[in-house]
Amino acid sequence: MNFDVIIIGAGYAGVTAALNLKRAGKKVLVLEARDRVGGRVYTKYLNDGNYVDLGGQWIGPTQDRIYALAKEFEVETFKTYDEGKSTLLYKDKVKAYKGLIPPLPVYALLSLDAAIKKINKLSKGIDLHAPWQSQNAKQYDSMTLQSWMESQMGSKVARSFFQVAAEAIFAAHPSEVSLLHALFYTKSGTDFDCLMNIKKGAQEERFVGGAQEVVNRMAALLADEIQLNSPVKRINQDSEGDDVIGEGFNYRARKVIVAVPPAMAARIEFNQPLPPNRDQLMQRMFMGSVVKCYAIYDKSFWRDKGLNGLCTTNNGLISVTFDNSPKDGSKGMLMGFVLANQAKAFMELTTSEREKAVINSFASFLGPDARNYEQYLEQAWAEEEWSRGCFAGIMPPGAWTSVGKTLREPVGNIHWAGTETSEIWNGYIDGAVRSGERVAKELMPLL
Amino acid sequence: MNFDVIIIGAGYAGVTAALNLKRAGKKVLVLEARDRVGGRVYTKYLNDGNYVDLGGQWIGPTQDRIYALAKEFEVETFKTYDEGKSTLLYKDKVKAYKGLIPPLPVYALLSLDAAIKKINKLSKGIDLHAPWQSQNAKQYDSMTLQSWMESQMGSKVARSFFQVAAEAIFAAHPSEVSLLHALFYTKSGTDFDCLMNIKKGAQEERFVGGAQEVVNRMAALLADEIQLNSPVKRINQDSEGDDVIGEGFNYRARKVIVAVPPAMAARIEFNQPLPPNRDQLMQRMFMGSVVKCYAIYDKSFWRDKGLNGLCTTNNGLISVTFDNSPKDGSKGMLMGFVLANQAKAFMELTTSEREKAVINSFASFLGPDARNYEQYLEQAWAEEEWSRGCFAGIMPPGAWTSVGKTLREPVGNIHWAGTETSEIWNGYIDGAVRSGERVAKELMPLL
Repeated sequence: MNFDVIIIGAGYAGVTAALNLKRAGKKVLVLEARDRVGGRVYTKYLNDGNYVDLGGQWIGPTQDRIYALAKEFEVETFKTYDEGKSTLLYKDKVKAYKGLIPPLPVYALLSLDAAIKKINKLSKGIDLHAPWQSQNAKQYDSMTLQSWMESQMGSKVARSFFQVAAEAIFAAHPSEVSLLHALFYTKSGTDFDCLMNIKKGAQEERFVGGAQEVVNRMAALLADEIQLNSPVKRINQDSEGDDVIGEGFNYRARKVIVAVPPAMAARIEFNQPLPPNRDQLMQRMFMGSVVKCYAIYDKSFWRDKGLNGLCTTNNGLISVTFDNSPKDGSKGMLMGFVLANQAKAFMELTTSEREKAVINSFASFLGPDARNYEQYLEQAWAEEEWSRGCFAGIMPPGAWTSVGKTLREPVGNIHWAGTETSEIWNGYIDGAVRSGERVAKELMPLL
Repeated sequence: MNFDVIIIGAGYAGVTAALNLKRAGKKVLVLEARDRVGGRVYTKYLNDGNYVDLGGQWIGPTQDRIYALAKEFEVETFKTYDEGKSTLLYKDKVKAYKGLIPPLPVYALLSLDAAIKKINKLSKGIDLHAPWQSQNAKQYDSMTLQSWMESQMGSKVARSFFQVAAEAIFAAHPSEVSLLHALFYTKSGTDFDCLMNIKKGAQEERFVGGAQEVVNRMAALLADEIQLNSPVKRINQDSEGDDVIGEGFNYRARKVIVAVPPAMAARIEFNQPLPPNRDQLMQRMFMGSVVKCYAIYDKSFWRDKGLNGLCTTNNGLISVTFDNSPKDGSKGMLMGFVLANQAKAFMELTTSEREKAVINSFASFLGPDARNYEQYLEQAWAEEEWSRGCFAGIMPPGAWTSVGKTLREPVGNIHWAGTETSEIWNGYIDGAVRSGERVAKELMPLL
């Protein structure tokens, strides 16, 4: 037996699990397909010393486990820039506004507010540990989030902005998402307001040095235990342990942690096919679609106009933007999301068409200054071989209540981690960390 | 270049494509993971010379392409047994009835009838070639079949029997199925009545010798071209052709046909990752769940009582049964489906628990005689390594309208077949045959 535990995937989940097990005296090996750690958290370092977060990037209140790691590994956080007015593009008109409430027709605002209050209320009833056992679980899982939105909001404008928020949260069209999953996810991340917002919300802070900084420092303590460029192709399981096999390697361990999303785990070959319901889960829990797009400017020109760079529209390629400039403000970095079905259409464009379309979108919010950019960068997560989508795996209708319970159920010596398996902050960095801690704890008595 | 075309999968789709291309003078190779041809059509031969169809088995009107093959390969068909009365188990009472209309409360029958008429009417508007371009496609794709059922049928009893029919058609819970997919599938197989019924319906006839007989005879003409026990693990594509690789083999061809369901195609490794929208399709189009269960009796004891063996209930493990006895009636064979979420629960039982539960279910329809069986057989398709579900791949909400167009779109030299890609009789044997014919035709000008 070469190892106590082999961990597949060196994202936050896998690295957290590995470090916790190593600290408990266990012999671990982490196998990572990419040439870096971090998984869906990916900080790209620019020539001028700056960096951009091309993947997960924010940290916010109640994300206690990633805050604890940031503290332990001495990575500072700083407030996401939100001083000044936000920008709304609605009916071809741009309006700046203060605070959280966009200048939409009152009937739309009332409808939107009622829907958000309602989804928060319904989400409170969800059993995060076993969503399929929640009251009304089958009913909620029988419909799409879109169907629910239509039943709740008479106002088409309200629905369209609710959709913007939902797509920014799920990176999926509301038609694709089970209402039960939406409620689960909402409660898992506190409430819908928290998921949407900067202040007191999931987007409140960023990491100095980028979101990959913490996991990089954790990985430095696992220098001998992490093997990069090593996609796992096959797991041969027997009662005593598992052989974990890829091109040029074949390691054996007593236990295996699969710390990649279910849709990716489906692509590993198993000598003993996984139980049918587990397999059916992996066939159903699909990855969201998002393209993260950056324009880098000499300075944050919008700040000079009293704008915070937070732009929203219900009718554009980019539906939300953020001011993602470095802490010291030495550059202007505008980041926008192309989400869900927009992302699917966008990915069929050529590189130069994409760049042009994004810059046009930025200019539609912030005027012609947005065209004077120094550099354009993007990350289309569905094109990434080892993620094939972002932010996270999502349950379509009917999945939670039929095969949801296989999400964390070990299969022989194989245990499951990854943000998709977390009860708290599912889909977020904090959820990934929690899943790594949980799976390490789960394994300790078995080693 | 070893071959003109390599075909992955020797089900009806792959074998049809291979035979058509061979007859056109092309050099083909069929690689099949299993030790037999037929795919989800699987005839098991019993010691006494009888056989049972453990997979797809029926043939019916307008399934012209499989009828043409049956004729060409001299495989006879015979009528599915339906003489005498059908059996309804409702509210713990068993009732025999003549004809198509079960003895349910009139309000339920009216509600059911209206819903079936409505789904037929809506389905007429679907563009089978491009469902995402149909009128109202986005609206239909935004909701589950379950949501639609609830909007249409006030009667809970009606809904429960509509669900029985829908599950027998899709092998999926109505909560999992996009309404757009349900409409597409309904039109693809003529109409909902045709999908449900024996007479003039999709279950009208069976094959003498079993449903695998035609494909077996076709495969006999491809004896040198079919390589069994050869799961394809990787496709290395370049502009001139593709290397198709598995354990112990590496073949090269100008073109490749992948004739396995999308959820299984996702598990092949590609040196050039597939386009993101194709990949996202494969993450979404999941396989249905069905267990096909048989009890074999000395004789069809139900026939002596004037029953046809066609039993239905809205409250049982087995929701529908058929008289699957051999043509000569020398044995009694009762076949029942465990469907969708029932299948998922059933697959967690032990072998003996399963057998007991099925026999109990048969006895609840047909009385204690059902307990005097000689043999019990079952096939749980979600447990089958190379199908991982049956009858077919199914679109959850939002998939057709976002990534549906990648279903048949070639990727470089890779072309797609399989019943999931058929416009007509999608999900059926006839659809598989049509997809094989279509893909062969599509390739001919390119070779």
